[in-house]
Amino acid sequence: MAAGTEIDPSADDAGESVTATVVGGSGFTGGELLRLLAGHPNFEVAEVTSRSKAGKSVGSVHPPLRGADLRFTEPDDLESVDVLFAATPHGVSMGRIDEFFEVADTVVDLSADFRLESEAQYDEWYDGHDAPEYLEKAEYALPEINRENLEGAELIAGGGCNATATILGLYPLFEGGILEGDEQIVVDVKVGSSEGGAGGGAASSHPERSGVVRPYAPTGHRHEAEIEAFLGTSVAFTCHAVDMVRGASATSHVFPDGPVSKGDLWSAYRGCYEDEPFVRMAAGGSGVYRYPEPKAVAGTNHAEVGFELDPSNERVVVFSAIDNMMKGSAGQAVHAANVALGLEEMAGLEFTGLHPVGAP
Amino acid sequence: MAAGTEIDPSADDAGESVTATVVGGSGFTGGELLRLLAGHPNFEVAEVTSRSKAGKSVGSVHPPLRGADLRFTEPDDLESVDVLFAATPHGVSMGRIDEFFEVADTVVDLSADFRLESEAQYDEWYDGHDAPEYLEKAEYALPEINRENLEGAELIAGGGCNATATILGLYPLFEGGILEGDEQIVVDVKVGSSEGGAGGGAASSHPERSGVVRPYAPTGHRHEAEIEAFLGTSVAFTCHAVDMVRGASATSHVFPDGPVSKGDLWSAYRGCYEDEPFVRMAAGGSGVYRYPEPKAVAGTNHAEVGFELDPSNERVVVFSAIDNMMKGSAGQAVHAANVALGLEEMAGLEFTGLHPVGAP
Amino acid sequence: MAAGTEIDPSADDAGESVTATVVGGSGFTGGELLRLLAGHPNFEVAEVTSRSKAGKSVGSVHPPLRGADLRFTEPDDLESVDVLFAATPHGVSMGRIDEFFEVADTVVDLSADFRLESEAQYDEWYDGHDAPEYLEKAEYALPEINRENLEGAELIAGGGCNATATILGLYPLFEGGILEGDEQIVVDVKVGSSEGGAGGGAASSHPERSGVVRPYAPTGHRHEAEIEAFLGTSVAFTCHAVDMVRGASATSHVFPDGPVSKGDLWSAYRGCYEDEPFVRMAAGGSGVYRYPEPKAVAGTNHAEVGFELDPSNERVVVFSAIDNMMKGSAGQAVHAANVALGLEEMAGLEFTGLHPVGAP
Amino acid sequence: MAAGTEIDPSADDAGESVTATVVGGSGFTGGELLRLLAGHPNFEVAEVTSRSKAGKSVGSVHPPLRGADLRFTEPDDLESVDVLFAATPHGVSMGRIDEFFEVADTVVDLSADFRLESEAQYDEWYDGHDAPEYLEKAEYALPEINRENLEGAELIAGGGCNATATILGLYPLFEGGILEGDEQIVVDVKVGSSEGGAGGGAASSHPERSGVVRPYAPTGHRHEAEIEAFLGTSVAFTCHAVDMVRGASATSHVFPDGPVSKGDLWSAYRGCYEDEPFVRMAAGGSGVYRYPEPKAVAGTNHAEVGFELDPSNERVVVFSAIDNMMKGSAGQAVHAANVALGLEEMAGLEFTGLHPVGAP
Repeated sequence: MAAGTEIDPSADDAGESVTATVVGGSGFTGGELLRLLAGHPNFEVAEVTSRSKAGKSVGSVHPPLRGADLRFTEPDDLESVDVLFAATPHGVSMGRIDEFFEVADTVVDLSADFRLESEAQYDEWYDGHDAPEYLEKAEYALPEINRENLEGAELIAGGGCNATATILGLYPLFEGGILEGDEQIVVDVKVGSSEGGAGGGAASSHPERSGVVRPYAPTGHRHEAEIEAFLGTSVAFTCHAVDMVRGASATSHVFPDGPVSKGDLWSAYRGCYEDEPFVRMAAGGSGVYRYPEPKAVAGTNHAEVGFELDPSNERVVVFSAIDNMMKGSAGQAVHAANVALGLEEMAGLEFTGLHPVGAP
Repeated sequence: MAAGTEIDPSADDAGESVTATVVGGSGFTGGELLRLLAGHPNFEVAEVTSRSKAGKSVGSVHPPLRGADLRFTEPDDLESVDVLFAATPHGVSMGRIDEFFEVADTVVDLSADFRLESEAQYDEWYDGHDAPEYLEKAEYALPEINRENLEGAELIAGGGCNATATILGLYPLFEGGILEGDEQIVVDVKVGSSEGGAGGGAASSHPERSGVVRPYAPTGHRHEAEIEAFLGTSVAFTCHAVDMVRGASATSHVFPDGPVSKGDLWSAYRGCYEDEPFVRMAAGGSGVYRYPEPKAVAGTNHAEVGFELDPSNERVVVFSAIDNMMKGSAGQAVHAANVALGLEEMAGLEFTGLHPVGAP
Repeated sequence: MAAGTEIDPSADDAGESVTATVVGGSGFTGGELLRLLAGHPNFEVAEVTSRSKAGKSVGSVHPPLRGADLRFTEPDDLESVDVLFAATPHGVSMGRIDEFFEVADTVVDLSADFRLESEAQYDEWYDGHDAPEYLEKAEYALPEINRENLEGAELIAGGGCNATATILGLYPLFEGGILEGDEQIVVDVKVGSSEGGAGGGAASSHPERSGVVRPYAPTGHRHEAEIEAFLGTSVAFTCHAVDMVRGASATSHVFPDGPVSKGDLWSAYRGCYEDEPFVRMAAGGSGVYRYPEPKAVAGTNHAEVGFELDPSNERVVVFSAIDNMMKGSAGQAVHAANVALGLEEMAGLEFTGLHPVGAP
Repeated sequence: MAAGTEIDPSADDAGESVTATVVGGSGFTGGELLRLLAGHPNFEVAEVTSRSKAGKSVGSVHPPLRGADLRFTEPDDLESVDVLFAATPHGVSMGRIDEFFEVADTVVDLSADFRLESEAQYDEWYDGHDAPEYLEKAEYALPEINRENLEGAELIAGGGCNATATILGLYPLFEGGILEGDEQIVVDVKVGSSEGGAGGGAASSHPERSGVVRPYAPTGHRHEAEIEAFLGTSVAFTCHAVDMVRGASATSHVFPDGPVSKGDLWSAYRGCYEDEPFVRMAAGGSGVYRYPEPKAVAGTNHAEVGFELDPSNERVVVFSAIDNMMKGSAGQAVHAANVALGLEEMAGLEFTGLHPVGAP
């Protein structure tokens, strides 16, 4: 891809080789991380752990890695590496964080364990926190809104996929002064089945999950906490499971106090995203793909963001779409690590997607 | 179903036989009407017209009717029947309505041609109206909110599928005094591909339509006009195409002025729907199907309605799901005809759905 | 359907009321049985057992039955009824068969426990048999090939879905003398995810099962035993999982010894199926649905059967499609029970399907 | 991806820049070609033609290219370039081939126009040929069986997707002496909707195409001609449309004359594919992905090949899976061009796929 070739030289310039361990590599996000690191010009995977799959080849679990000569190891006695990526369930990293920092200078956690800013928030939204002293040093893994703080960061906290889609859609309205924070905001999210992880279970079995438009966490979704933290305002948030595997799509309905023109909106979004390598604008135009769609970004680290203006009720409808496993998880983590380590931002993340593609 | 009627003694007992013609029988809603009429204990299909398929057997176009001995005829020179169902594109019925009433005492139109109350609305939302004098006598085909007026009605106007789902979800909040009409209402609809009809076209081709969460009529959707007409208030309405064939699901986010309890909500909904044969409540509980889902009503004339309360932002989230081709079109038309003609309300509409079922 | 029976006068006229118990009612086939029995003019469900769901309403597990006033009970101490339907996993019925006959005159087993004719076959294909003395009295539940024996049968053995599709496709070639039994027969089956049952598991989780064309039991599929038993010849059998929920489609490639014309094929198939209420022929013609498709029979007890002739290699390609949960399981069981008890063959099975429908 | 980094240096070393034109760039394969060329270290896209989309940006038609600054031009007056890729419908290239060679030294045609070896074959399988004098110089674009001839080739003929899957699966059995050519071979193919192209049409509309297992070209499929040409024997070939967008899966049932062991099969396949960069073997093992699946290679130029042995009927079942738009079309074309021009074989084709992915 054009962008890819641009940054190809970095493979040689930087020359820099970074060793990495993936803790919890048998799940979906772990596999995605491994795929990205294997194709990254700088990272070298030293170790991949999985208690359940220890000894098995990663290719037997993740088909795209069938070629790779890599096996899962037990998650104990970790080797020393430059960067440790934790793709473990919520609650694991907070318990092992000291241990992680003993073997790595930089820790990138893809769970919810370091996303929020205070122990109080974990008491309110989760079951408290085991290592609150680390919360202050953790940086939210979204370069579009947190790039400066990510540079040189030692602890990176991956964002939630639904929160990421929502924040990327609404952020420019606050930055651009179109929203103040006291307006009514309704966010209606549609998400794919990969969000449920590799576990299975009745609700996510194919017969029960296929073809659904299923209210899922209709209220009180934990990602609200992140959105509130980064936008500085609460939102009315509802999530639906729909029939796709990868993807999260957020439709945000907002009602600015004053009149707003399309020009105002364009300048607000351009102001934030013009130079962002992983944000594509899609707001109208002709053809089939006029607005953001998860389908258009499946397998990529790109987010699509767009909007429409509803004069009849002074509403701005904001659409934002990502691949929940990429921009919403593993891709975001690699992007943030690239920034933290001073590597080329797009390194390992050049894939721009497939057309046509189905329920990816 | 042809076979079904053969063996259905009720067809004889019930006695009353009603002759019916379907104008425009080769489309999806036309086929659905034929399927329902063939299995109906009272209706007898006299004629099915289709300009494009004239001479072909209906079974060659609609597989479920492969058994039936019925062929499409030219749409001109219609026979006299008791009831004429028009499943033609918007704009056709308003031009032929006089002709329709010459051959039938009762006309049921499934298009948008007689849904709205005034010529002014057609000027605003459509391209005007050719027979505005009929608008006053037309009755909206939703017995749940219009049963009395439908009894004995001569002109029945089918509702839009997205409007039907939305109205059924919100109506009890107004009836129950929980909403007054001046509150903010955001309606986020997800709809299946059958809504696009049998035409095809690039956007609805399988490769482009599969796996989508595609903003579709993000603002200014014509169904808003109906919703406004029957709820007496406007809504902020956005529609998305998702990967299913049958189904429309409306998630309505409302913000009552005063405090509301689940008990208040239950009594409002029970008050409206307790005795409705085609409305099922689903609001929480255990298992996989805790809220309304189009999947659960696919192929049926049932609507599922439910809600959840969000204390954090004093929001009521209302979920309503229907099969856009049944409760949202052909099933609703037969239901309304049953009421208009004094037949058993559920006649021909007893099917309660399949479990499990996929992207139905 | 509770509501359905209320309004179905035939329930009274037909008079004869048959009490039935469903043992193992929380699985997919159990739910399908309950749906069919609830809508049947003669059957009255006395008891539905489920160890895991005892006490819960059937509607909480099977949404189409949300209206019904029926709860799961413990599977012990069964009441006396006319007919007992067992929808339990393989191996359960053979252990409880004496007990079943103590409470019912007629037992219909949907598992594999009584499908085969001899203990030797169970030793070869399964893990032996606990009650071989019952094998002789068991009748295979396929009226199209076994109607006479089913009349008055006390023990009815449901067929396997893949075997049923295959047998219905090939049977006329043997009956019509086009195949002798020594020819090469290759059967390539495609089946939906409901065949895997309600259990779930990694391979049938939506992310892993969606969009597959997955070789599944590429060789040695147990259904081969049934096919061999009823066609009197073995077949080269391979099964694939594809992306649908309901449906089994068998493509059989056969190579008759002598020359065969389309006329020969039509007379062979018409000879067997002309008067069969649940077999539809589809062999060429125009339009989209020219050959059998699972989509066209989803939710119905109908089988579609068709063929094409390949002059270049003297091959006959036979296509047969069913809904694995209906004609391949619960529908077949009710059909066989209707025959065994002398009820109207199509009673409770009139539904002819939906068009369009997705991955049903 | 590991392989990718290996060849990254070539971007600088080879330095070699190759100019390319894509004739017919608005279709699915045209878009796929553009995507691959944009990410290729050597190719530079000079021109993309499309009569219907002339003037539009390629990103408006192919979302993954939204970033690219490239517009469609009229297909007349082509510029001179090194390589011309023709992604036009069958019949177009044979009429413009002289013109193509006037502007390019190397022509890669993705249609069927130069696949077969003789005018006689085109008379038999197609509607004859306009430029038979070119057939002799055309080389089939499958390096796995034709690498030597592709080196330095001037006219490259892309293979059919179903033929490619079939040939890759069966080729080793002939090379390894397990098949002689007189054995019975039955090939049962399942293919995705992208094969139908961007055109649309009733049969490929989402409502009609979703969830199908639809016999499609049950006999007499044109790809048989290619298979026969390259394997030297005819096959009994039947194709089914299934519910995925990308992918072609061929299940070949073969009956060797003598006894065959798994060891014999492994050595035959290893002998052919051990060193092939784009062929992955999958034959048994544990986990979910034990055999080839289109899902596992979606978006990649990889083919998965595997087999199973059926002792009961001395049958070998061969499974082969590709992405019909990549290894079955655009990817194969770029791979062949890499070989013809002496570039790194994997250049631009390193993507190894996604896990999990849906109906891709």
